[in-house]
Parts: sequence; C-alpha cells; structure tokens
Amino acid sequence: GLALGLWRRQVALAAAREDEEEKELRQRFMAPPVSGLRELRRRRRELRSRMELLIMETQAEVCRALAALDPGASFVVDSWERKEGGGGISCVLQDGEVFEKAGVNVSVVSGLLSEEAARQMRSRGKSLKAKDGKLPFCAMGVSSVIHPKNPHVPTMHFNYRYFEIEEADGTKQWWFGGGTDLTPTYLNEEDAVHFHKTLKEACDKHDLKLYPKYKKWCDDYFYIKHRGERRGIGGIFFDDMDSPSKEEVFQFVKSCAKAVVPCYIPIVKKHCHDSFTPEEKLWQQLRRGRYVEFNLLYDRGTKFGLLTPGSRIESILMSLPLTARWEYMHNPPESSKEAEILEVLRNPKDWVH
Amino acid sequence: GLALGLWRRQVALAAAREDEEEKELRQRFMAPPVSGLRELRRRRRELRSRMELLIMETQAEVCRALAALDPGASFVVDSWERKEGGGGISCVLQDGEVFEKAGVNVSVVSGLLSEEAARQMRSRGKSLKAKDGKLPFCAMGVSSVIHPKNPHVPTMHFNYRYFEIEEADGTKQWWFGGGTDLTPTYLNEEDAVHFHKTLKEACDKHDLKLYPKYKKWCDDYFYIKHRGERRGIGGIFFDDMDSPSKEEVFQFVKSCAKAVVPCYIPIVKKHCHDSFTPEEKLWQQLRRGRYVEFNLLYDRGTKFGLLTPGSRIESILMSLPLTARWEYMHNPPESSKEAEILEVLRNPKDWVH
Repeated sequence: GLALGLWRRQVALAAAREDEEEKELRQRFMAPPVSGLRELRRRRRELRSRMELLIMETQAEVCRALAALDPGASFVVDSWERKEGGGGISCVLQDGEVFEKAGVNVSVVSGLLSEEAARQMRSRGKSLKAKDGKLPFCAMGVSSVIHPKNPHVPTMHFNYRYFEIEEADGTKQWWFGGGTDLTPTYLNEEDAVHFHKTLKEACDKHDLKLYPKYKKWCDDYFYIKHRGERRGIGGIFFDDMDSPSKEEVFQFVKSCAKAVVPCYIPIVKKHCHDSFTPEEKLWQQLRRGRYVEFNLLYDRGTKFGLLTPGSRIESILMSLPLTARWEYMHNPPESSKEAEILEVLRNPKDWVH
Repeated sequence: GLALGLWRRQVALAAAREDEEEKELRQRFMAPPVSGLRELRRRRRELRSRMELLIMETQAEVCRALAALDPGASFVVDSWERKEGGGGISCVLQDGEVFEKAGVNVSVVSGLLSEEAARQMRSRGKSLKAKDGKLPFCAMGVSSVIHPKNPHVPTMHFNYRYFEIEEADGTKQWWFGGGTDLTPTYLNEEDAVHFHKTLKEACDKHDLKLYPKYKKWCDDYFYIKHRGERRGIGGIFFDDMDSPSKEEVFQFVKSCAKAVVPCYIPIVKKHCHDSFTPEEKLWQQLRRGRYVEFNLLYDRGTKFGLLTPGSRIESILMSLPLTARWEYMHNPPESSKEAEILEVLRNPKDWVH
C-alpha cells in the first residue's frame, strides 16, 4: 500500500513537471514547435531536437525585440503543415510604424529526397548514395528579413539551418548553413562597424579563421551579377559546414543566432526616429527593387523553396519588401549620399580587422 | 557635252531623292536605325532589312499613339551600341499622367554565338553545327511593356523578333517569334473580347489555325507556376516559327505588329479617366508584384538577356513596373472583383470563337 502510494505520487509529480515545462515552453515560443514538445523532450539529447529548440528560441527572441520597437503593430503567427512531412511557423509584422515588413520563419521538414534534389541542396553538389533512389532527409531552419520604413534604418536578413540525410548504408550526412547580412539604403560607417564587429566576436569565440572566410563568402554570395553590385554591405555567410564536429558547429551556429539581436536592434533604435526627405524614401524604394532582383534571380534558398513540392510560397516570398520601385536609367549624381553607398556595394570594404 | 550633262543631272536627282528618303525615314522613326539608312537601302530586298524597318515603324507607331494619350509626358529616346556588334533604341515614358511606365525597345544585334548559346535561343533546342565552335548570328526585335497608372487600364506587352544563324556549311537557319498579351488588374469582358478579337483577325488573314494555337501557347507560357496563375488574360505567343516560308511568316508578323495599336489603344482611351479607389490602386500594386515575379523567375527573354554578354540591362529591365507591392497572405474575399480576375488567371477562358 505504502509502496504503491509512493509510486503514484512520483508519477503525479513527473506529470506536473511535464505540464510546467510545457507551459514554460509555450510562453517562450511563438507557437508550439513542429515536432511537438513531448517528442522533443523524448529525444532531447539528439542534435536535431536541440537545433529545433534553438531556431524556435531565435524566432521568439527576434520577434519580441522587434515588437518592442513597434508597439502599435503586432506579429501575425501562422502555423502550417507540409503534407509531405513537417511544417513551420511564420511570424509576420506588416505595415507597422517602424517596420514596413518583418518576417521571421521557422520550418522543420522531413521526408524523402531524390538523389538529384539532395545534390542540389548542398552547394558543393556532393553526391549521395540512395536506397531505391530515395534519401530520407530532415531540414530545419530559421530565416528572416526585416524591412524597416525609415530609409536610415537598414534591412537585415538572417538564416540558420541544419540538414540531415541518411544514405543507403545508414550513414548520416549532416551539415549546417547560415548567415546574417545588412542592406542599408545609405551608408553609416559606425553602424557597419558595429554590425560586423558583433558578428566577428561571435565567430572569434570559436575559430579566428571563421569571420574573414565567411565575411568574404557573404560578399561573394550576395552579388547581383547583372548590376555589378552586392545586395548590401554583407555580414557572414556559410554553407556545407560539417567540421570540426557536430557539437562544435552547433555551438558556433548558436553563437551566430544569439548575435542577431545585438548586431541589429541597436541600429534600429538609433535611427528609427531619424527625419528623412521624400528623395531619401525614393532611393530606398529603388534599393528595394534591387533586393527583389537578387532574391528572385539569384538566391538559392528562394529558388530551392519555389521548386520544392509542398513548399509554402507565402513563407518563402515573405522576404520580398512590401513596396519596391524600378526607374529607367536612374543614376545618382557623383559624390551624393546615393553614390557613396553604391561605391561600397561595388567594392566591398573590410569593416573590422 | 549633252550626254555628260544629262548623266550629271541624273546623279544629282538620285542624290536628292536619297536625301529626301533619308529625311522622311528620320521623321518616321524615333531615331536613326541601327544598321544605318544607306545600308538598309543597299540591301532593301533582304528580309533582315525589311524586318528592321518593320520593328522601327512599329516602335514609332506605338510611341506616337501612347504619347498622344499622355500629352504632358514625353518619351526619352536612347540609342545605344553593343560593343560586340549592333545596338538598339530604347524609348521610355515614365511617370506620366496616363502611363506609369511605358517602354518600347528596338534591338538589332549580331556577332558570334557559341553552340550552347545558339541552342538556348530556340525553344525547341535544335542543335546547330558550328565552324570552329562559333556561329555567326543576327537577332532583332521590338519589345514593349506598357504599365498605365489607372487600375482600370490593363498592362500590355508585345514583342516581335527575328533570328538568323549561319551554320558551318553556309546554310542559314532563320525563325520568327513574338506575341502580344494583356494583363488587367480587373476583368472587363468587353475589353478582353476586343483585344483577342483584334489579334484573331490579324492571325486569320494568314491561317485559321494560328490564333487557337498561339492563344494556347500564350496561356501556357505566361504561367506563374508557384502561384498557379497566369500573368494575365493572354493574347498570342509563338516561337521558332519557320514555315510555310520566310515571306509568309514575315507577312504574318507584320499583321501582328500592325494589330498592336488597334488592340490596345481603344482600351486605354476608354478607361484612362475612370475613377478608382485607393483599394483598387492597392490591388493593382499587388498584381504588379506578380508581374515582377513572372519576369524575373520565368521569362525566357529576360533570362536570356541578362545572361548575354554586352546586353543592355536598363533596356531589359525596362519591363519592370515603376512600383510594385508584396503583402503576406493577401487573399481577396470571395465573389469580389479581385477574386473574379484571379479565377480567370487560374482558369483561362476562350474570349473569341
């Protein structure tokens, strides 16, 4: 009788603890995680569970920091399912006082990939051996684009993602990718230095070689070839990262994700009440046009997303600005503020050493 | 003495006639033709000369018809050269009373193509035998996109083009391509019927099979796959047209080019003073966003242009609207005017039988 009573109390206590944890997680996140809290708790030591919690936390952190700066507006939160497996949570704030459009998207998808699709997922195009031509995979990530209203506040983008693919012989291929980059309408050197310095510090905790390598990769990736310009003043970008170890790469990605709020939010706070002219707003709109050109013509993520069966179009194209403009033959006058940023987009600079 | 005087008089008369012709052509066109009037006169019987005159005439006809409707605005005319051979004339009217952005572009380019590039030019991907890996080619066309301000006036696009490629054994491959299509913000059945009827009549003069075939090709080509929508309500579209004969295809293309003004201008006249609400303007801006998506993600002409060395970016991207908008999850209410046009974009209709 006593033993049974003790056992019952322990079961009840465990259940209460689970409820408490669930309540806490619900408060921490924008929506319940795709994999479910129970499942995440069950496999809490696996990297994919820890990564799912990290991307959920990052989404919530960024959304809260943005919402605090734009009290009149609020995030619309959409949880969606992918019928082929998995789903996501899209948080979008549109037409606020400070932000024109801010989207923070989490997706956790799984299923089977063709060998061809699997090859395209890796920028190195490594080939993978499939059982019956299909490869079980799991892909998850957080991605975000923030377009502010004020032309003196830059647009910011970040994305951190993790892939797992199981080959025919049972070996698991895994890799991480991601980056954070800034697209100002006008150059502010102090902001550029702050942004890059914050990212460099996050990288330097792990390996001093990472920042210079990923800074260059970022400048190379966000290149609008037909314009001869980069999309913005860069940041960091990497893909196919699978060494030194799963744990070490995860810790690096975690540092990068934690750097998003400190590298960007101070810049928004500093400039969101700056006054601006209609001409400055117009230049911002033209730069938004370039942003659209990059995303639709070159971005691998957008292309991959649009080609993936069952992908959620609205979440992929969330990255496009609310408004954009294209003028025929717009050339800013020499030594104007507009020409100054163009010069940096044509010839990327080192902001920190 | 007498014979020499007569001969001198004849030479003087011929020169005066040439001057007169030159003056007349200058008045007829927006700028001197790329190949030069003297050269065009010298090879006046060759099809490429006749086609160059046709595209120049079409450009001038369309520009004059548009300018007459927007008296406050005027076309900026830019003649440009391509250092690899040839050049073009871009005419752009921007931010007028009636037109937000209207561009009519002529290009006449020639040079050497790689076998790969030559294959990509034809939608059928026919392979061509090159001498030393290079194929002499000549490509010319007139292309235009007209974005009006009033949401009750549709956007119109047309393009007529001619290609010649010389193979290693001296055989000349040639073909024509082109089309005219309409992109309304709101559906007006009367306008849709007028537009398609005018195009059908132009086609029917040549072969009754052409309109149905090219109407369908147009619906298939202007498909925004990730949206499950067409860009507009269609028109005609064709490529690789090389039969029954060069002369007959040229006459068909001429009829199509001559139909541009009568199929579109009456619609502009009818609606350019229609009143509209801010909500209607907003829906137009969202549709402009879709136009950008099609042009940057799917249009073969834009892609080919951006990849061609020495191409003029400003003339290619002239097709983009002055302004566009993307809203997250914008879904018009059922049985609204917005839902009505979406229905037609999802399920193309036959407007004439």
